[in-house]
Amino acid sequence: MKIGGQPYRTIFPDADGASVQVIDQTRLPFAFELKRLATSAQAAEAIRTMIVRGAPLIGVTGAYGLALAMREDASNAGIDRAVAELGATRPTAINLRWALDHVAALLRRLPEDERAGAAFAEAGRIADEDVASCRAIGEHGARILSQHAAAKGRRINVLTHCNAGWLATVDWGTALAPIYVAHDAGVPVHVYVDETRPRNQGAALTAFELNAHGVPHTVIADNAGGHLMQHGEVDICFVGSDRTTASGDVCNKIGTYLKALAARDTGVPFYAALPFSTIDWTLMDGVRDIPIEERDAREVTHLTGRLADGGFATVEVVSPGSPVANPAFDVTPARLVTGIITERGVARADAEGLLGLYPERRAAA
Amino acid sequence: MKIGGQPYRTIFPDADGASVQVIDQTRLPFAFELKRLATSAQAAEAIRTMIVRGAPLIGVTGAYGLALAMREDASNAGIDRAVAELGATRPTAINLRWALDHVAALLRRLPEDERAGAAFAEAGRIADEDVASCRAIGEHGARILSQHAAAKGRRINVLTHCNAGWLATVDWGTALAPIYVAHDAGVPVHVYVDETRPRNQGAALTAFELNAHGVPHTVIADNAGGHLMQHGEVDICFVGSDRTTASGDVCNKIGTYLKALAARDTGVPFYAALPFSTIDWTLMDGVRDIPIEERDAREVTHLTGRLADGGFATVEVVSPGSPVANPAFDVTPARLVTGIITERGVARADAEGLLGLYPERRAAA
Repeated sequence: MKIGGQPYRTIFPDADGASVQVIDQTRLPFAFELKRLATSAQAAEAIRTMIVRGAPLIGVTGAYGLALAMREDASNAGIDRAVAELGATRPTAINLRWALDHVAALLRRLPEDERAGAAFAEAGRIADEDVASCRAIGEHGARILSQHAAAKGRRINVLTHCNAGWLATVDWGTALAPIYVAHDAGVPVHVYVDETRPRNQGAALTAFELNAHGVPHTVIADNAGGHLMQHGEVDICFVGSDRTTASGDVCNKIGTYLKALAARDTGVPFYAALPFSTIDWTLMDGVRDIPIEERDAREVTHLTGRLADGGFATVEVVSPGSPVANPAFDVTPARLVTGIITERGVARADAEGLLGLYPERRAAA
Repeated sequence: MKIGGQPYRTIFPDADGASVQVIDQTRLPFAFELKRLATSAQAAEAIRTMIVRGAPLIGVTGAYGLALAMREDASNAGIDRAVAELGATRPTAINLRWALDHVAALLRRLPEDERAGAAFAEAGRIADEDVASCRAIGEHGARILSQHAAAKGRRINVLTHCNAGWLATVDWGTALAPIYVAHDAGVPVHVYVDETRPRNQGAALTAFELNAHGVPHTVIADNAGGHLMQHGEVDICFVGSDRTTASGDVCNKIGTYLKALAARDTGVPFYAALPFSTIDWTLMDGVRDIPIEERDAREVTHLTGRLADGGFATVEVVSPGSPVANPAFDVTPARLVTGIITERGVARADAEGLLGLYPERRAAA
């Protein structure tokens, strides 16, 4: 999508042919800066420190990280080491695991001197596939939005949580892709953007994206969504997913479950938009079986933002000496999900619904 | 309760006999400072800027504000002006309305030269009554906690939202009073403290209170509570109420409704603890009829906290140029409330339950 009139992807090969460039998302929304990743260690660090974030983008960054590792050590031991290092950065994201295993398997079949080139090419192919996949999610989801807008005869209000926009992918996004497609097609859409504590990806990234693209939106505290739904201010919820079970449970940023409950209680449709790569076909019970990443307490106790003078500062906001817990994701059970939007279409959030979109998994099961 | 071993109330008459002292809650948790209120305008300002906050404390501050106004102009017009000025500061809080109307009615029956003295005395009486009321809420609620702890044979985990502790009242608190009483009686209690965006009263005030009193607790982002309940980490929820309908709907800090939904979905009991003064006997449908205060967008876009060097700074955390909505309260329908704890006991959250505790209202209805 565009920033300042210039089209960007979130990750792309550098002109030097030996490194990749990423948008440094820790600098958003106040500064737009690119960062060059020249080693697999830098790629791992970029994932760990959330310079790049969002399940699909993490996967592509992992693939490029493995490609960078092949320039350093293209042996089988080098593959194993890079997969271990890159895979340990964000344990919950299934896309990362998928991308690393996929590229590693391909590389092991090649002679060592072909591995670096092949890995770069495959990472680029995964990136292109992600763009096409997100665009398809956008088309399928936009039909739901335009049906709602037509039925209501007015602008419709979409609530979203966290950032499942183009900054979380390579382009277009997942939960926001339908909004961009609908908006571009003239469907009147307004978005309620959950702040998304503790890392504020909604307030910082989703708001930035929508603002840059000209989509009407309003930022709210995470606490406000239920109240808005009670008062008819939300017509539909669209969220992403970092991991989706074969039964349709959705694991997304912490707090998503609370919005799904409010949507159910107030009769608001609740959709998860996700690419096939987030589906973990081995799991049927997300609450029980998806490991939830516990992140640093400092994400809750401290916030970084812009000072009135344009500088930046980090301030402490929790009473000193109080312990903190910081689970990063929660699981929304399939029973609360109206439908799952993937690059292949819209499915009921259950095993049969997902298998209907991916019949090839029926044979695999 | 105590701070640094010294017992305090949140508001108390100054030794000069002509003003009142309050704890400046905008300075907590990093600094403990008292502030002197010498005029009704200062009292109104203290309520508006949340130097004092919490429904019961706002009510007592309003009463003292009216007393201060009587030193300035004890005429009937002076009463009307002060009631209007003080009443406009926080439109949702029923206690404020109640205290102002109650003291004003008493004053109108007195000669002008007796009004200031009588108003101070009545404000002090309301404060004492609040302390006794909160202590009684604590006794009734503590029985529920000790029953749960006995049944489970282990430390129990209570989740609370916002600050309904002693800092929100004159002493003891409402939702936290049962926790203090239980803790002091040796019942093993641990509290999950919702940060409570956008003003962070949980992270700043509830955590401060519990820490000062030695009650084990953990601060969490507002988004985390549903996940913890899904995993059996919360045994019971206790929240306060700024306004309660005759039908048992509870209006509390924005986001409370989301926690009540999660509690219902996971089988966790959800109690609201409140003094009679928050009950609005004229309302039966809280979602429809309770006006919800819309507060300044800056509460969402900016946060103030402590810098590493001990200084304070305000930082901007929302993408510049994005609109913001900031509703301050939401309504939890009675159907989601397990019980209502008042100074008279524990009631079912419905009209009959509340009338059972307040039979004198049956005649009034």
